[in-house]
Amino acid sequence: MKKIAVFTSGGDSPGMNACVRAVVRSAIFNGLEIYGIRRGYNGMIKGDIFKMESSTVSNIIQRGGTILKSARSKDFVTKEGRQQAYNQLKEHGIEGLVAIGGDGTFTGANLFYEEFGIPTIGAPGTIDNDLYGTDFTIGYDTAVNTAIYAIDKIRDTADSHERVFFVEVMGRDSGYIAIPCAVGGGAEIVMIPETKTTIEKVVDALKTGWSRSKTSFIVIVAEGDEEGSAVEIAAKVQKEIPQMDARVTILGHVQRGGAPTAADRMLASQLGIACVEGLLAGRACEMAGIVNSELVYTPFIETITKVKALNPNYGRMIDILSV
Amino acid sequence: MKKIAVFTSGGDSPGMNACVRAVVRSAIFNGLEIYGIRRGYNGMIKGDIFKMESSTVSNIIQRGGTILKSARSKDFVTKEGRQQAYNQLKEHGIEGLVAIGGDGTFTGANLFYEEFGIPTIGAPGTIDNDLYGTDFTIGYDTAVNTAIYAIDKIRDTADSHERVFFVEVMGRDSGYIAIPCAVGGGAEIVMIPETKTTIEKVVDALKTGWSRSKTSFIVIVAEGDEEGSAVEIAAKVQKEIPQMDARVTILGHVQRGGAPTAADRMLASQLGIACVEGLLAGRACEMAGIVNSELVYTPFIETITKVKALNPNYGRMIDILSV
Amino acid sequence: MKKIAVFTSGGDSPGMNACVRAVVRSAIFNGLEIYGIRRGYNGMIKGDIFKMESSTVSNIIQRGGTILKSARSKDFVTKEGRQQAYNQLKEHGIEGLVAIGGDGTFTGANLFYEEFGIPTIGAPGTIDNDLYGTDFTIGYDTAVNTAIYAIDKIRDTADSHERVFFVEVMGRDSGYIAIPCAVGGGAEIVMIPETKTTIEKVVDALKTGWSRSKTSFIVIVAEGDEEGSAVEIAAKVQKEIPQMDARVTILGHVQRGGAPTAADRMLASQLGIACVEGLLAGRACEMAGIVNSELVYTPFIETITKVKALNPNYGRMIDILSV
Amino acid sequence: MKKIAVFTSGGDSPGMNACVRAVVRSAIFNGLEIYGIRRGYNGMIKGDIFKMESSTVSNIIQRGGTILKSARSKDFVTKEGRQQAYNQLKEHGIEGLVAIGGDGTFTGANLFYEEFGIPTIGAPGTIDNDLYGTDFTIGYDTAVNTAIYAIDKIRDTADSHERVFFVEVMGRDSGYIAIPCAVGGGAEIVMIPETKTTIEKVVDALKTGWSRSKTSFIVIVAEGDEEGSAVEIAAKVQKEIPQMDARVTILGHVQRGGAPTAADRMLASQLGIACVEGLLAGRACEMAGIVNSELVYTPFIETITKVKALNPNYGRMIDILSV
Repeated sequence: MKKIAVFTSGGDSPGMNACVRAVVRSAIFNGLEIYGIRRGYNGMIKGDIFKMESSTVSNIIQRGGTILKSARSKDFVTKEGRQQAYNQLKEHGIEGLVAIGGDGTFTGANLFYEEFGIPTIGAPGTIDNDLYGTDFTIGYDTAVNTAIYAIDKIRDTADSHERVFFVEVMGRDSGYIAIPCAVGGGAEIVMIPETKTTIEKVVDALKTGWSRSKTSFIVIVAEGDEEGSAVEIAAKVQKEIPQMDARVTILGHVQRGGAPTAADRMLASQLGIACVEGLLAGRACEMAGIVNSELVYTPFIETITKVKALNPNYGRMIDILSV
Repeated sequence: MKKIAVFTSGGDSPGMNACVRAVVRSAIFNGLEIYGIRRGYNGMIKGDIFKMESSTVSNIIQRGGTILKSARSKDFVTKEGRQQAYNQLKEHGIEGLVAIGGDGTFTGANLFYEEFGIPTIGAPGTIDNDLYGTDFTIGYDTAVNTAIYAIDKIRDTADSHERVFFVEVMGRDSGYIAIPCAVGGGAEIVMIPETKTTIEKVVDALKTGWSRSKTSFIVIVAEGDEEGSAVEIAAKVQKEIPQMDARVTILGHVQRGGAPTAADRMLASQLGIACVEGLLAGRACEMAGIVNSELVYTPFIETITKVKALNPNYGRMIDILSV
Repeated sequence: MKKIAVFTSGGDSPGMNACVRAVVRSAIFNGLEIYGIRRGYNGMIKGDIFKMESSTVSNIIQRGGTILKSARSKDFVTKEGRQQAYNQLKEHGIEGLVAIGGDGTFTGANLFYEEFGIPTIGAPGTIDNDLYGTDFTIGYDTAVNTAIYAIDKIRDTADSHERVFFVEVMGRDSGYIAIPCAVGGGAEIVMIPETKTTIEKVVDALKTGWSRSKTSFIVIVAEGDEEGSAVEIAAKVQKEIPQMDARVTILGHVQRGGAPTAADRMLASQLGIACVEGLLAGRACEMAGIVNSELVYTPFIETITKVKALNPNYGRMIDILSV
Repeated sequence: MKKIAVFTSGGDSPGMNACVRAVVRSAIFNGLEIYGIRRGYNGMIKGDIFKMESSTVSNIIQRGGTILKSARSKDFVTKEGRQQAYNQLKEHGIEGLVAIGGDGTFTGANLFYEEFGIPTIGAPGTIDNDLYGTDFTIGYDTAVNTAIYAIDKIRDTADSHERVFFVEVMGRDSGYIAIPCAVGGGAEIVMIPETKTTIEKVVDALKTGWSRSKTSFIVIVAEGDEEGSAVEIAAKVQKEIPQMDARVTILGHVQRGGAPTAADRMLASQLGIACVEGLLAGRACEMAGIVNSELVYTPFIETITKVKALNPNYGRMIDILSV
């Protein structure tokens, strides 16, 4: 293997640049030529491919977003699109790929390998942390910290006005972001897709709190909660407690950006190196991850199909801590 | 004058605590006894009044929110409510008040002075910066910085995905927060209540940008813009440009909290001292402010009725900077 | 067991307050009375002990430092001092202790248990991360993030002026803080107590870098490095390369303060609960920690005597990433 | 005038990039060609000059440091060096210059204009804020905020351990940075070059504080204080109060970097535009600044020779606030 390429795909996450940097430098360290592909599979199809040097990735370790841009590709879903992508890679002499992204990215890479034999090793780049095969995904720690520091600011005003704040954080399918936000943000209640928390339970918790002379409350809502969005949940609770002075805040896309935390830079650096070394070792269609402090490679098929369960103790923690 | 009291009222803003601290310490420095009143006029009516010492305000200069809590008072609007407030103050022997708040707060204080002769000096505590009589209000600089650092994060993801972001910032009646967010956030377009910016103009600006190969855009929307909220404006623009990949973020209450900036701590400290010294000098019904680096006292009636106009050059700045 | 007490001891670390909060609330959740002891063993000897309620720990989860204060105690080293401490605890009816601190704290607790039979469970509160029995100590993640964000700022000016910066971070006996600072801060060289890095090697690395047209460099120095402090190392290198434009920055005590990160709040909360539950389960002289995502209790004697080795791969990572 | 060039010179400061961006975009807005010169006068002499487009300055408004690099030039001090610089500019057809820097930069530009007739307009880019002709220099607000947030962290640990911290901030000739750090950082004492504060006064202040049961103290020292560095001052005080538990922290170069604050981005943007418009209006050898919210141009000779006096009230403020 002489030439490899790296791309980012799917929703961007903080630390993707740190990972790109690690891929580029470890490729060079190992005597490989390294190329960047812009806009994920779209750029692969269009041949938006360029040679990267060590200096191309200078001073990017601390930057949010991705210098390689990201996009979802409709064309790569078609056989014709993948054929074009293969032609472009062949033309550039690229023999292996490093993909930084999530489920969708790895599904495409799997298919591409079956059809055209170009091996891909993946790094888990997503703030959602819901990928099997790694304790943490690149960007998750940063997203959680961004959310918690925002919640700290909200608590300032919640306390001053003795209000109930419903704060919506990211997490369409899981409470991975919501849980540490609730624990670390000092929230009284958390509502996540994995657990059924009824409106009655929220109403009870608020009433119990007031009876114990708590005067302000934070309710963390994962965007995919079964009771609806933060706006909907606040409205339902308001109906039961008309005198409640409530506000809703949706943290939104700020959670995707920003300088990555130390942990995300470290993880991204480790996994970027592991992707290149995995390719050199002849691996294909595997995701590099860290499980219990050890580097592991997990077949894409497992990362896509297996579910990483949330620690069930966290609900109890929040009950204890909001006493 | 031997005893005075301080309270915070209206929407909370970062730096209120720094101002409370300055009021307390300069009162003590000047040999006065100083009391705190909780929850603004509500606490005055209920007698929620307590003696403050120098140590009561230790280690609060950096904290968002207000340790004195804040609330809007329905009862103070009535003569009966004000009578009760007066009775409470009299009972505690309080001869002067420092009010940290905005328009509504000062209106009440004016009336209260006419009826009961208790003088109030005010400090402008609001993130909105729309008070006549001071170049900046306490909390404004922090709110703008909070918004800009959030926009920095949004730009990371906007660039990575080549999207158009509509970001709503606070400002029901003015563009004071929106303008520096647009200039400092590197936005292409700003929509504020003071200036009419049509949907056509936004559409044109986006199309011109794309034609110059700009790939991502940030549109800052003050919540009080005449074209509607960020959600509404994004929908209107989307209708004209169906292929636009747009997202909306509402920064919301995070703008109210957080550790105050250096400028807000300095301003809050100066004005807190000025309030106490104003009372001691026999002033009443005036707001302390800084205009062109000079301390000035402005009658409440002027701060309430006069309009502080936004610098009209800012629109041109954004046109230039987004070339 | 009906009454327990909590104290913080040794160097303070961010997250101690989050841990105190968790101890207090889980004690109350479990029907215990909970007391706070100020200034560690000194307060225990002097009887500076007070009852804590749920509200005592409201709104402290995000605060750096420790509301219980911390100190090193000379008197507790003596039998007489410990006797006085025991008398005070007995007088208050305290039957168990939660100690948040490090090696010295646990050594004292061990002795105290042998002599007087009061059981202590410990939580690892130190930024140094050098305690056996937990993957991370409370405060470590925050300290590393604080250092990395400072290094980001230094890199701005290093790049602008094309200088070599020698940045000293905490770590008298280990490179636990220096290593992620070097990886995440994009440093070219790291000097830690565990590994011998000669001045010649630094000189070579700089010369190689310049020959590859690198123009600015960051050298991270753990304060306990065998070649000396950052000031001394910079002077030695300067002697070999007189034309080098170098600067030294010592990050110092800023690394001890600040709002704890999400990970530190989560860890502190988990371990605070675990300390109380450990006492209730009849444990004594053990430290609660998280190893590979699992809660474990490790005898104090092991945390004090066993060494937690640094991952030896990190040196190689820095070589690769600074290519 | 058809072609102009921009460069940064002297110590870098946060907001220089925002200013470069504004210069580039307003040049293009006004139909000019715009060039960048790397490494200040050094690059001018060597012809390190390149054409800039609007996209060259995309996404730099938030970045610390300067993409144009900065350096002090020994060669520009010589007539021969300036002749070479002139030749280079002539070769590129450059008719006007925008210099972002401080005293030294403007002195050189003055001489250069006298000899070769190339007009320069300057923007005040320095964290020191000691330039006559503008209320604030670009980077000052950011440097002060960086310092204050660091002092917040130090206060956490100062409080926890009840220590005296001597914190050294930048300011070789003035207390411009030290004063807001002391006011906003809640310091008890400030030592600046403009005012004589004796060691006796520090000792007295500490003793008075302890007698009022203050337990921790922050002393802010401007690096140019006449009593010496923070290390020296701490040692002198320690000699008088042997039992004092003191620590020293030197904030150092972190104050130079980091994302600029809102105020610095706004100021840098305004002044960058003003520099270009000044050149177009036929101005030369003047610095653009903002005084009392108004744009003013001040001859370089005045910015160099006149002294901007520190507000003398600040000392009194700190006395009041540390009561």
